[in-house]
Amino acid sequence: MSDEAIRKRTKETANKLFGKGIQLNPPYLMWREFEKDLANDFSKFITGNLYSRTVLTLPERQMAACAMLAAIRAGDELKLHVNAALNVGCDPKKLTEIFFQVATYAGMPAVNEALEIYREVLKKRNEWPIK
Amino acid sequence: MSDEAIRKRTKETANKLFGKGIQLNPPYLMWREFEKDLANDFSKFITGNLYSRTVLTLPERQMAACAMLAAIRAGDELKLHVNAALNVGCDPKKLTEIFFQVATYAGMPAVNEALEIYREVLKKRNEWPIK
Amino acid sequence: MSDEAIRKRTKETANKLFGKGIQLNPPYLMWREFEKDLANDFSKFITGNLYSRTVLTLPERQMAACAMLAAIRAGDELKLHVNAALNVGCDPKKLTEIFFQVATYAGMPAVNEALEIYREVLKKRNEWPIK
Amino acid sequence: MSDEAIRKRTKETANKLFGKGIQLNPPYLMWREFEKDLANDFSKFITGNLYSRTVLTLPERQMAACAMLAAIRAGDELKLHVNAALNVGCDPKKLTEIFFQVATYAGMPAVNEALEIYREVLKKRNEWPIK
Amino acid sequence: MSDEAIRKRTKETANKLFGKGIQLNPPYLMWREFEKDLANDFSKFITGNLYSRTVLTLPERQMAACAMLAAIRAGDELKLHVNAALNVGCDPKKLTEIFFQVATYAGMPAVNEALEIYREVLKKRNEWPIK
Amino acid sequence: MSDEAIRKRTKETANKLFGKGIQLNPPYLMWREFEKDLANDFSKFITGNLYSRTVLTLPERQMAACAMLAAIRAGDELKLHVNAALNVGCDPKKLTEIFFQVATYAGMPAVNEALEIYREVLKKRNEWPIK
Repeated sequence: MSDEAIRKRTKETANKLFGKGIQLNPPYLMWREFEKDLANDFSKFITGNLYSRTVLTLPERQMAACAMLAAIRAGDELKLHVNAALNVGCDPKKLTEIFFQVATYAGMPAVNEALEIYREVLKKRNEWPIK
Repeated sequence: MSDEAIRKRTKETANKLFGKGIQLNPPYLMWREFEKDLANDFSKFITGNLYSRTVLTLPERQMAACAMLAAIRAGDELKLHVNAALNVGCDPKKLTEIFFQVATYAGMPAVNEALEIYREVLKKRNEWPIK
Repeated sequence: MSDEAIRKRTKETANKLFGKGIQLNPPYLMWREFEKDLANDFSKFITGNLYSRTVLTLPERQMAACAMLAAIRAGDELKLHVNAALNVGCDPKKLTEIFFQVATYAGMPAVNEALEIYREVLKKRNEWPIK
Repeated sequence: MSDEAIRKRTKETANKLFGKGIQLNPPYLMWREFEKDLANDFSKFITGNLYSRTVLTLPERQMAACAMLAAIRAGDELKLHVNAALNVGCDPKKLTEIFFQVATYAGMPAVNEALEIYREVLKKRNEWPIK
Repeated sequence: MSDEAIRKRTKETANKLFGKGIQLNPPYLMWREFEKDLANDFSKFITGNLYSRTVLTLPERQMAACAMLAAIRAGDELKLHVNAALNVGCDPKKLTEIFFQVATYAGMPAVNEALEIYREVLKKRNEWPIK
Repeated sequence: MSDEAIRKRTKETANKLFGKGIQLNPPYLMWREFEKDLANDFSKFITGNLYSRTVLTLPERQMAACAMLAAIRAGDELKLHVNAALNVGCDPKKLTEIFFQVATYAGMPAVNEALEIYREVLKKRNEWPIK
């Protein structure tokens, strides 16, 4: 794929994921402050390349991302991705269910951190309580 | 729900997840060797209770389980659940995609361990290479 | 055990652990805001079932809980459980010793996070410095 | 404390912990093959210093060590310390209970790995099944 | 080495690492509030013993420390050590490069947490942006 | 940079890192069995892009990689990278020192796993004991 095509795809996918809902500083802006080249490389690789593939639908991909981020207790990143999950149409009840499911594999501290972040995002989006 | 109903649901769900594919010793058997009461409590809670809920379909639940187990690098448990994922009808290509996606959140050691286990399970099921 | 009996045990054990000392929002309240059924299931399983068993005394159980939570660096959960440990009569000097012991298995970042949280809880309980 | 006294204490404590039960290669021997000075420094600090303190009894210390090692899924180290726990008189039923308790904080993969190692050690010590 | 010599080395090394740049409360002060003996033992072992060895130069040691702390996402400790790294003359561009390198092994949440802390420290030292 | 140039750089860097010493199956071969496109994308991004940058020398990069992999206890990946570290000229004594340094941040289980793997690689390379 041409570099131009990758750039376009990166923007489109980033827009679907992060262009709505609550506004959070995407890590990309921080990367750029450190190193413009690396920032572009990472962005194109992750968003333009991996996230633009269509084997998984975007909601499926975000469900998997939220499951993983909850399990490894990566709260800041989870905030970004739970917002993105809601932006691309994930069912909010299914996200709740996944966060309780985390108990089995990563224990209650991971469940509690995930639910706390999820509730905070839902409130900021005026989507709380879940109907 | 009556205790009887929970027991029945535990068996049905366990059967859907682990009753086909490669035969692995479910942890339940080891739990029982240590403590019969706890073994039953855990089994009813995890399989009869959490896993029998229907907010997520079983394939959705297994996709999330596989994503988490890969991210936390829990190889033995992943082996059980990737086999269960295939038993309940998860698309093998989507599982591959999730395991590569792990890179973004948990790094390459997690990706490599997950793919290695996944390939081993697929081979034992005579489903390798993925079509 | 009847459901009624489990409910009673859940309340009694929860009361021993969290009914004194500093007042913190137990995760149970958040679980309920998401899903009343799951909240009850988790609460009965963890508090009514596991924590009400008597193979370990409550102080022994809390020592183990604090050791684990310090080692996995689960700060919010540790705050709850170090407070509970003091509520059920754990020797505060033994808790200090366990948190330094964490160094051997999980390194100094885990030690430092645990001691910081422990000191904060002790101060709020007016039990600092330890005598 | 004099260097001589520390050395003596190191040996005495090491003997109580590792001088009975199944024979495993203590990491100290490997450390020595790499760097004699560091091996002695680490051994004196961990065994002679930390582990020889008496704020915790040796069984209490081993219960905490086993809880932590199970929670962080450090299997090889857990094997050493569960054997040491039995050597210094920990109640085997209490160890079982702690390993199931791990579920709450670190999830089932940690429980299963701990129980598997524990059962293996008990078998080698001819103390299986637990009475 | 005599106890006196160790004490001297501990002070000298601590001064090189933490005597300049932004002023942060070293964990040693907290350790002392809990247990004076353990505080001294830990300090002499880590700073006087390990960190005063010369097989690695101090900048090499700090590069390794920063790499590890970023990978395990130990933010508070990383703040101390990235400041120390700059104090002993590590090239700030190399530290940036290491933090991006973390992606490969520990994923983007670890990269983002490390860069955030690093930028904060650089700003407080008036060394931002990196030239 | 043109795709052709990236491919060339990927091969050159891969060759410096993995073209000597003990022969291990690079994960790239497994990636290819799953998905040729993703395998190429990952390989070009990690090896051709990140690892070919010259802000860090290759030995500096490998020291950081080994530090991180030891700290997160990623044994299989560490085996690859400790071999690569020796291939690009890292001082074996400095690697030993880093692995003992891991104790401070990630505890003894991480130290022991790293040293065990390191000794195994050194033996297979006929470079044991370290002179």
